Amino acid sequence: MQKHWHAPLLEHLIQFSQQKPLSLHVPGHRHGEVYGQLTEQLRHTDYEELMRYMAKLGAIDVTELSHTDDLHDPETIIKDAQAATAKLYGAERSFFLVGGSTAGNIALILSLCDTNDYIIVQRNVHKSIINSCKLAGANVIFLNPAHEATTNLPVIPSIDTVQQALVQYPQAKAVFLTNPNYYGISADLSEYVTLVHNYHMPLLVDEAHGAHYGIAPYAPPSALKAGADAVVQSMHKTLPAFTMGAVLHTQGQYILKTRLQQQLSIIQSSSPSYVIMASLDAARATLECYGYEWFLQTYTIVNRLTEWLHSKQLCLRVEQLDSKSLEYKQDPYRMLLFDQSNKVTGYQLQKMLEAKMVWAEMANEKYVVLVWHMNATEQQYEIVQRALLEIHQQISVMVASCHTVSTIINAPEVMISNPVKLQRFPSNRKIETIALIEAKGRYSAEMVIPYPPGIPILFEEEVVQAFHIENLLQFIHSGARFQGSTTISEGMIKVFI
Amino acid sequence: MQKHWHAPLLEHLIQFSQQKPLSLHVPGHRHGEVYGQLTEQLRHTDYEELMRYMAKLGAIDVTELSHTDDLHDPETIIKDAQAATAKLYGAERSFFLVGGSTAGNIALILSLCDTNDYIIVQRNVHKSIINSCKLAGANVIFLNPAHEATTNLPVIPSIDTVQQALVQYPQAKAVFLTNPNYYGISADLSEYVTLVHNYHMPLLVDEAHGAHYGIAPYAPPSALKAGADAVVQSMHKTLPAFTMGAVLHTQGQYILKTRLQQQLSIIQSSSPSYVIMASLDAARATLECYGYEWFLQTYTIVNRLTEWLHSKQLCLRVEQLDSKSLEYKQDPYRMLLFDQSNKVTGYQLQKMLEAKMVWAEMANEKYVVLVWHMNATEQQYEIVQRALLEIHQQISVMVASCHTVSTIINAPEVMISNPVKLQRFPSNRKIETIALIEAKGRYSAEMVIPYPPGIPILFEEEVVQAFHIENLLQFIHSGARFQGSTTISEGMIKVFI
Repeated sequence: MQKHWHAPLLEHLIQFSQQKPLSLHVPGHRHGEVYGQLTEQLRHTDYEELMRYMAKLGAIDVTELSHTDDLHDPETIIKDAQAATAKLYGAERSFFLVGGSTAGNIALILSLCDTNDYIIVQRNVHKSIINSCKLAGANVIFLNPAHEATTNLPVIPSIDTVQQALVQYPQAKAVFLTNPNYYGISADLSEYVTLVHNYHMPLLVDEAHGAHYGIAPYAPPSALKAGADAVVQSMHKTLPAFTMGAVLHTQGQYILKTRLQQQLSIIQSSSPSYVIMASLDAARATLECYGYEWFLQTYTIVNRLTEWLHSKQLCLRVEQLDSKSLEYKQDPYRMLLFDQSNKVTGYQLQKMLEAKMVWAEMANEKYVVLVWHMNATEQQYEIVQRALLEIHQQISVMVASCHTVSTIINAPEVMISNPVKLQRFPSNRKIETIALIEAKGRYSAEMVIPYPPGIPILFEEEVVQAFHIENLLQFIHSGARFQGSTTISEGMIKVFI
Repeated sequence: MQKHWHAPLLEHLIQFSQQKPLSLHVPGHRHGEVYGQLTEQLRHTDYEELMRYMAKLGAIDVTELSHTDDLHDPETIIKDAQAATAKLYGAERSFFLVGGSTAGNIALILSLCDTNDYIIVQRNVHKSIINSCKLAGANVIFLNPAHEATTNLPVIPSIDTVQQALVQYPQAKAVFLTNPNYYGISADLSEYVTLVHNYHMPLLVDEAHGAHYGIAPYAPPSALKAGADAVVQSMHKTLPAFTMGAVLHTQGQYILKTRLQQQLSIIQSSSPSYVIMASLDAARATLECYGYEWFLQTYTIVNRLTEWLHSKQLCLRVEQLDSKSLEYKQDPYRMLLFDQSNKVTGYQLQKMLEAKMVWAEMANEKYVVLVWHMNATEQQYEIVQRALLEIHQQISVMVASCHTVSTIINAPEVMISNPVKLQRFPSNRKIETIALIEAKGRYSAEMVIPYPPGIPILFEEEVVQAFHIENLLQFIHSGARFQGSTTISEGMIKVFI
């Protein structure tokens, strides 16, 4: 039976706009009317059509009026929209974010960590989590990620690594993990939840790329279902919310909701965008009403495309995890495409697709990541199929392998860092550039990130230890590229005096 | 001669969308296509029409692709759009804000204040400035505002107050003022700039309500023109940007642009909204091209309405500052409406207008604030005229004055606070509720804000002094209402143990 599509916030905004209110308040486009006037002025230009739509959408770009509720103290339509979201995902409470997952990550850490508190964080998290730790003035214990066997891509730290960190730092306020990774590879978090709760702290999960998890067919289970205490999801990444639309789900006793709401009010605009909030409401309603059917449609298309590609013996392939491994799951809506003839890198493959107006999410040395959204169409299948066939032909006539994929370095033996107190202003102190081999015991004044795999080896303020030096020498000798440091490839590093 | 309407960011986004790219990346609505599919599903419902427009506007809700630039490191279209903004306003550099003026205020303070640094701040600033000081861990010296004579509304502190604060705290990192106030009353800042620069620190101005200042005809001069070092403007308040669209202008030697950009990257989403950025580009282009003419049209309508109102001897009037006073200027696009028969409050007047579908910006005990935007129409003039006439008739038959406006309390003798170290977590420490008259020397555990005038008498963590107690007792005896504290009207206050 068809579910009912209902979006309480959006519905209210539509009904209000239908009453033709006269706006003598902010915002300055008067429910879009000024854009309507621009449409007249810009007739017969490229801008005309878009101005018309900005005028129409401006009708719901309102502000806090007596009946439009308040994101920072929701009581009516925003409260209802958030409650519908919490119900669908199985959260105790869901908070709308208008500043992206970034806002959720910052508010979470600020709500849990006071200055000098300890927090255990996966080393290769999104920069917003690192920035949050700087803002909070927290001491961070970084955990090295594990690696998935088929792809060699970093995934969440092993349960052993997390356990060791908890034994060493039982005073930490939380453990923060990112699952799935950018490539759509995730682990089941249930064991991690049990472990972290044994130490009476919350497990926080950046599930930015998994807003469809647990709901779309064949998608891996969600972090919330596994019992995580707070989960941040980008509703604009894999669901149809407008960019910056995200949600923060919470459950259980560890997250103090009032304190979290306070920190969200500090970090987010006092005039939050109703367009973005309405798009969150629409995305949730769409997932609830058509999500299963529309994702299934996409699932079928992705699988047909993969089967076609592999049956045709093209040089392009879709990576598939070892089906025997129960440890890691792959997002069926994210395709890792690569050239098995090893003639073009992921970066080059991405450019070749762009030349055919097929735009991928990202690439690394080996893979291009394609993100497939709900209700993909037969036409899209054909466009991609044609593009892949043409690219195969282009690659086939290339004479030789034109690159080597960097050797993946073995994981370092030391998986748990000493506590690192990140600073907002590392540049306040004097810095010198010295030889890496003489840097043992010094405080790094820069981030050092070999790429691939993009996992920071050193953060600013991290004490350089023997194993860091060994590890970096290996990378330098293998010819790796680096982000952050500009001198490390010549064996030099910036440290604080 | 007609200027050319040109918006480099918006134009690029339109041209890209016209090429019909296939999106296999975030956001999950695929240039709005998913909303197009929803339009089909939701035919003949209230949602249908809006889904169609979300589909159309979704075409420009893109992400960082190889040619769409990066707000956090702008090099092409965003750089051009920001440069066009800086040029129009006369700034050295302008930064687009997608998190509202809130994001600009936070980044500014974080870029200038490290933990325990001092900053001089007008007491009645927007909460985002208070929150920024909490995030920075700064010591705040609060300055009491002056009051404009005709309206008794708080305006920026007197130049003497600022000078005294600078003499006492020359080590402060900046002075932060709000100008104009919410009612559109401002002072010329030139003298303040000279004074603050004499102490080798920057003057920061929250000009959220004055994005049209210095450009719209008859508007007061802008803070930038007066020489302020950093100015935050809400482009969505008095210009037609979408909500959360704002801009941070800088000039001069005191603001380190690299450091500011770093803090903006910490505080704002790593996936900033292109719809909001495009609306900033459109708002700037509109102001540049049609601003003078369209604001002049509004100016004429506002003046005709005021003249009509006053010529008709209605009980409703528009407040006008003493024309002899050169000290304060009034925003000609902001109307302070009140009932001179003193039968209804500003709050009641606002409700009466809403009942006629005329929506005001805000109200206090006495005034309703109407914000008039560019290119107001004859039809709007007539709607408001009719509403005012009908409300006059409603008020005329009311038998008696139904309220008294609270007496405005004289300004306290002590205009400069001791340094206050605001905390993100004041509730970490134990609190007791004691009699106000016994609170001298204790640290307040709550904000105490008599309303009107809405100026905080005490912040959390502020030491209660004798003059605070006297001042609060006056308010309590006059029957004032309070925000923040729930017990103060019974003469009790929460303090830290």
